[in-house]
Amino acid sequence: MHRRTIGILGGMGPLATAEFYRRIVLRTPARSDQEHLHVILDADPTIPDRTAALLGRGLDPTPALIAAARRLEAAGADFLVVPCNTAHAFLPAVQAAITVPILDMIAEVAAAIAQRYPPATRIGLLATEGTIATGLYDRALSRYHFQLVVPDEAVQRLVNQAIERVKQGLLDRQTAALVSPAVDRLAREGVAAIVIGCTELSLLPEWQADLPFVDATTILADAAVAIGLGQRPLPAPLSATCLAST
Amino acid sequence: MHRRTIGILGGMGPLATAEFYRRIVLRTPARSDQEHLHVILDADPTIPDRTAALLGRGLDPTPALIAAARRLEAAGADFLVVPCNTAHAFLPAVQAAITVPILDMIAEVAAAIAQRYPPATRIGLLATEGTIATGLYDRALSRYHFQLVVPDEAVQRLVNQAIERVKQGLLDRQTAALVSPAVDRLAREGVAAIVIGCTELSLLPEWQADLPFVDATTILADAAVAIGLGQRPLPAPLSATCLAST
Repeated sequence: MHRRTIGILGGMGPLATAEFYRRIVLRTPARSDQEHLHVILDADPTIPDRTAALLGRGLDPTPALIAAARRLEAAGADFLVVPCNTAHAFLPAVQAAITVPILDMIAEVAAAIAQRYPPATRIGLLATEGTIATGLYDRALSRYHFQLVVPDEAVQRLVNQAIERVKQGLLDRQTAALVSPAVDRLAREGVAAIVIGCTELSLLPEWQADLPFVDATTILADAAVAIGLGQRPLPAPLSATCLAST
Repeated sequence: MHRRTIGILGGMGPLATAEFYRRIVLRTPARSDQEHLHVILDADPTIPDRTAALLGRGLDPTPALIAAARRLEAAGADFLVVPCNTAHAFLPAVQAAITVPILDMIAEVAAAIAQRYPPATRIGLLATEGTIATGLYDRALSRYHFQLVVPDEAVQRLVNQAIERVKQGLLDRQTAALVSPAVDRLAREGVAAIVIGCTELSLLPEWQADLPFVDATTILADAAVAIGLGQRPLPAPLSATCLAST
């Protein structure tokens, strides 16, 4: 099978990118260095904050995202993955500026849920305010007739704090505890599963819940490995259809 | 201070590269994504096995290393780091093919030990057969008049097995147990500290020992962060003087 080079457009945040790359390595069936996939990663921290931009409080990250995408394309990446849910709001513009396809993490998550749950199932979401504001998951899940449930404002504020703490390298129980009220609230709302729709939250030790989690970071890693190994075709260029107009 | 882009020439092995990048992120003083350093990483698994080449049983990895180094340079890296001790035997030839400097991990480790221990101290080494065969650490440590002690052949064979298991993603107690006999042997030889001189071994959970360890992966990460932040000048181009003729 024809192997392909994975380009990781990362740094959003850097620790989540490191964990994403680690999952790619651990989830690649390989018994020696030489059986692994070629990965090129570009983590440019000057990419402005995505949520701040979406809420109208910060610079547009699109130019920096395009610059990083072009560096990865020039270095030889056959397709790109972006381990940041919120950044997906800007990816149609990035895709328009490059030739190699960008794999759509949000669409991958929705497709994975569709394989596990029947239509009309209520699905919870833990994500940044930016991701929620764009309706990225709303749109992707409604294609499969799922009902998205997001935390109310008060508990979302705690989720935001947890994400900020992970970005500061604080992967402790105190950070995980900030997410518990949102999980409890979503459970009471009758969701069948909760999407971990922020790569920072994927880094936390598993918090207590009787619900299954769908981790977007792992789903993206598995999809990238399958495409890299040639077990799946290259994705079509990322389209704007299931993304929010920003 | 002027920030610099770190180029990681990785994939040797991939899991060790992921851990090295994680340490760079965790050891960068940053409270937001934007305070982190720009990192570009190229992990090309087609780079032939370094130890096999050094022992005359495999292809020369130099051409593939040069190709990856050139990609990193073209992508904008200001200096390169190579989180693989054994690969350092080939780096003078790589340095000769590029303009940006390569930071010498072995020299960094020797300098770090010199700050902590007086001359003539006995220092143990856990590394691949390839690294030991080249005398890389021997030469670097003898500049500071340290005495290098390596495991005997029987326990070294177990260390080799541990490294192979890490490359297969097996980070368990069974793998760690394979290293214990070498640690015990070095302790009986009266070493004051043991260099973890193989990035795969840096991935293992701390094994029991009453000795301090000097982890080459962490020393390289700290040096890369200091140079990236502009707290240290760019390194001089890597020279062949303290490296083995291969």
